[in-house]
Amino acid sequence: MQIRFSERAKCFRPSEIRNKLFDDPEIITFAAGKPEETLFPVKDVMEAAKHVLKLEGEKALQYSDTQGLREIRQMIASQRMKQAGVNVTEDDITLTSGSQQGIEFSAKIFVNEGDAIICENPSYVGAINAFKTYRPKYIGIPMDEDGMIMEELEKALIANPNARMIYTIPDFQNPTGRTMSIDRRKKLAEIGSKYQIPVIEDSPYAELIYEGVRAPAVKSFDKDGWVVMLGTFSKIFCPGLRVGWVCASEEMLQKYILAKQSSDLQCGSLDEKIIIAYMQKYNLNEHVEEIRKVYRERRDLMLECIRTYFPKEIKYTIPSGGFFIWLELKKEINAKELLLEAVKNAKVAFVPGGAFFTDSGHSNYIRLSFSFVDKEKIEMGMKRLGSLLYSHY
Amino acid sequence: MQIRFSERAKCFRPSEIRNKLFDDPEIITFAAGKPEETLFPVKDVMEAAKHVLKLEGEKALQYSDTQGLREIRQMIASQRMKQAGVNVTEDDITLTSGSQQGIEFSAKIFVNEGDAIICENPSYVGAINAFKTYRPKYIGIPMDEDGMIMEELEKALIANPNARMIYTIPDFQNPTGRTMSIDRRKKLAEIGSKYQIPVIEDSPYAELIYEGVRAPAVKSFDKDGWVVMLGTFSKIFCPGLRVGWVCASEEMLQKYILAKQSSDLQCGSLDEKIIIAYMQKYNLNEHVEEIRKVYRERRDLMLECIRTYFPKEIKYTIPSGGFFIWLELKKEINAKELLLEAVKNAKVAFVPGGAFFTDSGHSNYIRLSFSFVDKEKIEMGMKRLGSLLYSHY
Repeated sequence: MQIRFSERAKCFRPSEIRNKLFDDPEIITFAAGKPEETLFPVKDVMEAAKHVLKLEGEKALQYSDTQGLREIRQMIASQRMKQAGVNVTEDDITLTSGSQQGIEFSAKIFVNEGDAIICENPSYVGAINAFKTYRPKYIGIPMDEDGMIMEELEKALIANPNARMIYTIPDFQNPTGRTMSIDRRKKLAEIGSKYQIPVIEDSPYAELIYEGVRAPAVKSFDKDGWVVMLGTFSKIFCPGLRVGWVCASEEMLQKYILAKQSSDLQCGSLDEKIIIAYMQKYNLNEHVEEIRKVYRERRDLMLECIRTYFPKEIKYTIPSGGFFIWLELKKEINAKELLLEAVKNAKVAFVPGGAFFTDSGHSNYIRLSFSFVDKEKIEMGMKRLGSLLYSHY
Repeated sequence: MQIRFSERAKCFRPSEIRNKLFDDPEIITFAAGKPEETLFPVKDVMEAAKHVLKLEGEKALQYSDTQGLREIRQMIASQRMKQAGVNVTEDDITLTSGSQQGIEFSAKIFVNEGDAIICENPSYVGAINAFKTYRPKYIGIPMDEDGMIMEELEKALIANPNARMIYTIPDFQNPTGRTMSIDRRKKLAEIGSKYQIPVIEDSPYAELIYEGVRAPAVKSFDKDGWVVMLGTFSKIFCPGLRVGWVCASEEMLQKYILAKQSSDLQCGSLDEKIIIAYMQKYNLNEHVEEIRKVYRERRDLMLECIRTYFPKEIKYTIPSGGFFIWLELKKEINAKELLLEAVKNAKVAFVPGGAFFTDSGHSNYIRLSFSFVDKEKIEMGMKRLGSLLYSHY
């Protein structure tokens, strides 16, 4: 039996961050980029669900709009987008199943086979894998502590006229935890206009800021519609309700709506209505404030553990928000091999960094997530990982 | 501002069956292929939701498996698939956001640009639009009262070696309401094996049978894994919970799982858990039996109205299940123009049939749906539509 798959399907790759290896309950895992589930407002969600099913149960279980219910789009525009510094209305927004779907649609909408996608190097592996199915070339732009380097970006745009899309995670980037400076955000929006290339701003973590003042979204500096912003309730609320959104200028937004229609018709009606009811009855900003505290403590502890338990030569980022810390080990260490050793001998897991890069090599990086592990386990796991690392230094 | 969309995105088309024209509450619409929402087991769903959020709220709101929770896949295998005559386990199933997503993935997985997709002519417009984004050629196979004609299918396969996929809706087809005979189902499974071409069996309506005995799925005759079956809870339960499934042989199933992962990671965790809890506590088969009765009465009434109120020259199908009746009007009538007239003057709507065909012409067909309209309105709307039709005969 010789199945003829499409060239596209031959490029499908399993995600290294959804690894069944990490499911062993004995293992302390810093791998998963999951939110802490004990922070979910389960009781309030239950109240919201009961309210919705009692008052409008039939509509909550029926087909609904492809673009998403007007009410939830209004709330996204007037709350989430406004807080990002972006002044838009519900008409500028369409819903997606998490921001992952907005990522996938972006490549579907803008990229032909062989065209180039520009992104930070390293970048989110789930985006790289999603884009891969459309068979693009990747151009990875180097970063520093202030995010993607704009001079390098312009050089790449000039050298690659077949570039069709710039993908960026400006806030507490996955995997590095780095944040793009405000000046670069302005510059990036200008570059989008100047080169007439869509800038896909993926912003799942922006609200999870642990110090300083939130930087306005790249989209807030967008003058003529070249920036597409992707948002989601997954990290600030609950990812089991699959609701994210795309904010884009009209002509682009129409393409996202049609992509949604042909892909899966719409988001879950009940999910949308639960989020609406929750936001009517409770204060999502207060909830975000609460979870920030917990994540901030975990971040602080993990950083402290690095300073205490890890060899001093290891370089690490200090994220001011989000879920991730990014480590550069010495060149001799292969992080994939280290992971096997870590799981077997130290009962601790992380994501080897290689898969986040658009090019090969880079085998000496690891991503640590502090979001999903309580403080006791952070302390224990980091100590174990530290011992393992010392055995290689 | 000249946006460069991908060639793919230039092929996006809005679906003619999700038309805002039909949203006017004054209009009696036979257009929407929606289930009747007063039949949704809202109270039972509420009990299920409360149960789930009370006992495992955190998990119900957290990320979950890409393939879908084992429990729901077990239930699908042992209940839905078994009743279709297909003996499989949970390992042969992966979840999708409705069967629409399984449709879209099929083209993504099997079809390169310029390859041919074979389907019934006419076929489901939502599938045609989803496939279109992968820029295939279409080969429409003529049907008779027993469904797709197998001799024509084999001719097409011989003439088109670039055919990569056969798409069929064997039960109460959308839009014609026709059902494929058992002999042809066997033959179709054989053809899949003989020509080594995937047969995508889209089966959203099969359980909604109003007379006679249910025919086994094409998948039940599949000997070596060339048939992929798509199922969904949308028509037998509630479409607002976005859960459908793909049943396929291992190598193909892996591609569907990876397509899901890169597209949107997973279905809604809460949706899955609600369906599991509902099926544990209540009897979905009994629910299906109840809704069948209502739909059967509506079908009977609509057929009676055609006989009573419509010009005798009009040809129509007599579906033994599903949602749709298919009408062939005289050649002089353009159904798109008729729709405008119907909405304006008769306050009644339907779907013009042209969009369901893979080729142009065919402007004299209409699809009527009896699923979403109560009997009083069926009587009233069909009477109005009949008068309008008489004015053209």
